[in-house]
Amino acid sequence: MATHQKPLHQLDAWQAAEALARRDIQSVDLVRACLDRIDQRDAEVHAFVRLNADAALALARTLDAGPVRGLLHGLPFGVKDLLDTADLPTAYGSPIYAGQQPLADAAAVALCREAGAVLLGKTVSTELANMTSGITRNPHNLQHSPGGSSSGSAAAVADCMLPLALGTQTAGSLIRPAAFCGIVGYKPSHNRVSRAGVKSLSETLDTIGGFGRSVRDVGLLGAVLTGDKRLADPQNFDSSAIAAPRIALCATPDWSLADEDSQQAWKLADKALAGYVQQVALPAELHGLVARQKAVQAFETARSLRHEHRHHAQQLSAPLLALLEEGMCIDGETHAHNLQAVAHQRHVAAELFRNHDVLLAPSTVGEAPAGLATTGDPLFCRGWTLLGLPCIHLPFTRGRKGLPVGLQLVGRFADDHRLLAAAHWVHERLTR
Amino acid sequence: MATHQKPLHQLDAWQAAEALARRDIQSVDLVRACLDRIDQRDAEVHAFVRLNADAALALARTLDAGPVRGLLHGLPFGVKDLLDTADLPTAYGSPIYAGQQPLADAAAVALCREAGAVLLGKTVSTELANMTSGITRNPHNLQHSPGGSSSGSAAAVADCMLPLALGTQTAGSLIRPAAFCGIVGYKPSHNRVSRAGVKSLSETLDTIGGFGRSVRDVGLLGAVLTGDKRLADPQNFDSSAIAAPRIALCATPDWSLADEDSQQAWKLADKALAGYVQQVALPAELHGLVARQKAVQAFETARSLRHEHRHHAQQLSAPLLALLEEGMCIDGETHAHNLQAVAHQRHVAAELFRNHDVLLAPSTVGEAPAGLATTGDPLFCRGWTLLGLPCIHLPFTRGRKGLPVGLQLVGRFADDHRLLAAAHWVHERLTR
Repeated sequence: MATHQKPLHQLDAWQAAEALARRDIQSVDLVRACLDRIDQRDAEVHAFVRLNADAALALARTLDAGPVRGLLHGLPFGVKDLLDTADLPTAYGSPIYAGQQPLADAAAVALCREAGAVLLGKTVSTELANMTSGITRNPHNLQHSPGGSSSGSAAAVADCMLPLALGTQTAGSLIRPAAFCGIVGYKPSHNRVSRAGVKSLSETLDTIGGFGRSVRDVGLLGAVLTGDKRLADPQNFDSSAIAAPRIALCATPDWSLADEDSQQAWKLADKALAGYVQQVALPAELHGLVARQKAVQAFETARSLRHEHRHHAQQLSAPLLALLEEGMCIDGETHAHNLQAVAHQRHVAAELFRNHDVLLAPSTVGEAPAGLATTGDPLFCRGWTLLGLPCIHLPFTRGRKGLPVGLQLVGRFADDHRLLAAAHWVHERLTR
Repeated sequence: MATHQKPLHQLDAWQAAEALARRDIQSVDLVRACLDRIDQRDAEVHAFVRLNADAALALARTLDAGPVRGLLHGLPFGVKDLLDTADLPTAYGSPIYAGQQPLADAAAVALCREAGAVLLGKTVSTELANMTSGITRNPHNLQHSPGGSSSGSAAAVADCMLPLALGTQTAGSLIRPAAFCGIVGYKPSHNRVSRAGVKSLSETLDTIGGFGRSVRDVGLLGAVLTGDKRLADPQNFDSSAIAAPRIALCATPDWSLADEDSQQAWKLADKALAGYVQQVALPAELHGLVARQKAVQAFETARSLRHEHRHHAQQLSAPLLALLEEGMCIDGETHAHNLQAVAHQRHVAAELFRNHDVLLAPSTVGEAPAGLATTGDPLFCRGWTLLGLPCIHLPFTRGRKGLPVGLQLVGRFADDHRLLAAAHWVHERLTR
C-alpha cells in the first residue's frame, strides 16, 4: 500500500492508522498536514468553531515518541460542538451556551483520546443539533448545504481537513450530511455508545456516531466507541474472505418522494449488486414510522429543552421555537402510546433480518439543497433512527448538479460488526 | 379533608397541592414549615447538600400572589444533586465536581418549576450515584443507612422536610431508599422522562423518578415529568370507582435471599390481598436478569465515567474504581450480546401483563442495614430496571428492628398511569 504517495491529509483514517502504528509516518506531520488544509480551506467551508492547534501538535509529538496507545494512535479527529470537551468550550451551536467550558470530556471524546486520537478542534453543529443551519458550507459546492446537524464534522472530513470526526443523529444528522458531503457516515445501534457529556434532546432517538472517508475508517471509530473489536477486525474487511451478505433492497413507503438523483443511484446499486439482492417491502406494522418519529422527536426535544424554551426564548431561532411549541402540544398520553408502539415496532424490525443480513435503503431525497436556508430533509433516516437500527451511508455516485449521492445500509440491532463488514463488501461493488 | 389540622410540613404533597390551589394555605407558610423542620432535623439527618431558603421564600410569596401555575403550585421540592440546577451548584456527589455551576436546569427540574414547584435545595447523592455512601442517615434510626443512591431525597421526604423530591435509579436507587425510609418511591418507565441535564451513567438503565409520602404524591410528580395527566387524575385514585387490579405475586428467582422481614411483609400482603392475587413465576427466558443487569451497568458506567476514571482516579472511591475496572474488562462483543438479549427480554416481559395489570414483588432483602458502610443491596430492583418497567415502592409494615419494610408494584412498559392507580388501590388495602 503506497500510502506515502498520497498527501498525508488525504489518507483514509485506517491507512493513516496503519502507517502511524508502523511508524512509517509521524502524527505530527499528519496533524500539520490537516492544519495546513484547514488553513487553506476553512475560511470558505467554515467547518470549525474552534481549533486546538498548539495542543494537538504537542500531543502528536508526545505520541510519536511513545508507545502505540490504541486503534486511533496519532489520528487527528474533530468533535461536533454538541459534545463536551474538557479543554475547549462547548456551545451546542447556540448563543445561550457561548463560551461554556465543561469540566469533563464527553464519554465518546474520552474514549477516542484514550485510543490515541488527537483532538484538532470542535466542529459546527446546527442550533442545538436541530434544523437551523450553522455557517458551514458544502465543500463540493460552497453554494450548497453540507446537511446537518453534524454539519462541520461531515464537511471537514469530506474536505480532507480531518480523517475522522464525531457527530450525533436524532432524525438524520449523521447519514444526511454524510450523503450531501459524499463520505461514509455511521450511526451505531441506539444506546450502544454512551451519551454522557452530550447535550440531550431525545432519549428514544439520540445516537453518537461519526464520519470517515471509507467503511474501514468508521469501523475504527466504531470499535473505540462501542468497545467491540470486531468493528475494526481486518478480516471483516477482506471481501474475498467473507461470505457475500444477503441484501434486502428496501425502498420504504416514502420512495415516491425520492428525486431523480436518488432513483438513479438506486438503479445503479440494483445493477451492481445483481444476484445478491432481493426486493422487500416493509411489513404493514412498520408503516407510519416517519410520522411517529416526528412526534417522538418533537415531544422529547420540547421537554429536554424546557429550560432554554422558558428562559432563553429570544435566543432560539423561529424554526426551533416552532418545533418546541409543537412538541409541547403533544400530550404525554399520546407519547406513552408512541413509546409502546416503538417497543413493538423494534421487535417487528428484528424479523426483517431473519432472511437478510442488511437492508439497502435511500439516504436522502436527492443531492444537497442549494443555499443554507435548509439542511435538507431527514425523511429517509427518520424510520431507521426510530427503530434504533445501525445505519451507514455509502457514497458512490453524483447527481445532476454534480453533488454526491449514495445509499444507506441498515443492520440488525447491535449487529454493527456485521453491518460494517457488509457495507465494505457492498461499497467495493458500488465503487468499482 | 381537615388538612389544616396537620402541621403543614406533614401534609402529603397532594393534600398540600389541593389546599394551595384552593388558597386554604399559603406556599410561604408551607416553605417556612419545611425550612423549620430542616432546621430542627438536618444537622442529624444530613439530607441536604445545599439549601435555597431565601429564593424559595421569595418565589413562594410570588406564587401566593399570582395565579395557580400548575399541578405542583407552591409545593417545595428537593433535587438529588445528580441533576443540574441553574441557580445552585451541582456536584454529583463527587469532589471532582465540587462547586460546579450548570448554566441550565435539568429538564426534570425545569418541568417541576414550570408546574409551580419551589426548589428548596439539593439533596445528597452517593458518589456519582453509585454505591459509596454520602453523609445522609436514616431518619427512622440515625445508626442506619437511608439507602442510596438517592439518599438525601428519600430521607428528606421521609422526615417531612419536603413533600416531594427527585431522584434517579440505575440499579435500585429510587426503590431501595424509599423502602429503607418508609416512603413511596416511583421509578417511571425507562426513557419516559428526559435525562437532559442529569449526569449520565447508563443509557440502558438510568431513569429519573421521585419520592412522596403517598401514591397520589408521586402521581403528581409523574404527571409533571411525563406530561401524562392520567398519572394525577383523581378518578384513578378513587378505589370505589376503579376496577380491582389483576395482581400477580412474583417473588422472583432470588426470593430465597429475602430475609425474615421481607418474607413477613410478603405474607401480610398475600393475606391483605387475598382473592385478588395469583402467584406467578418468571418464565425461564427472564431468568438471569440480575447478572445481566450487573454486566450492563458495569460496562456502561465504565464508559460513561471514562474521563473521570482516567483523569481523576485519586478522587474516586475504591468501590467505584473497582466497578469501573470491572466494567472495562467486559468487552464490547459481550455487551452487544447483552443488548440484544435485553431487547428480547423486554419483549418477553410484555407478555407478563397479558393476564395481569401489575406484579407485586420484593423491594429489598430486608430492613435498612446498620451503619453507613453500605447503602444496601439493590438485588430485587436490578431485573425490573433492566426490563425498563415502571416500579413503585409501597411501605406498609416494620421489620424486627422497627425499620420500614414494604413491597414494590411493577407495571407494564409506558402504562405508568395504570400502575399508579393499582398502587393506590393496593396501598389502601395494605395499610388498612
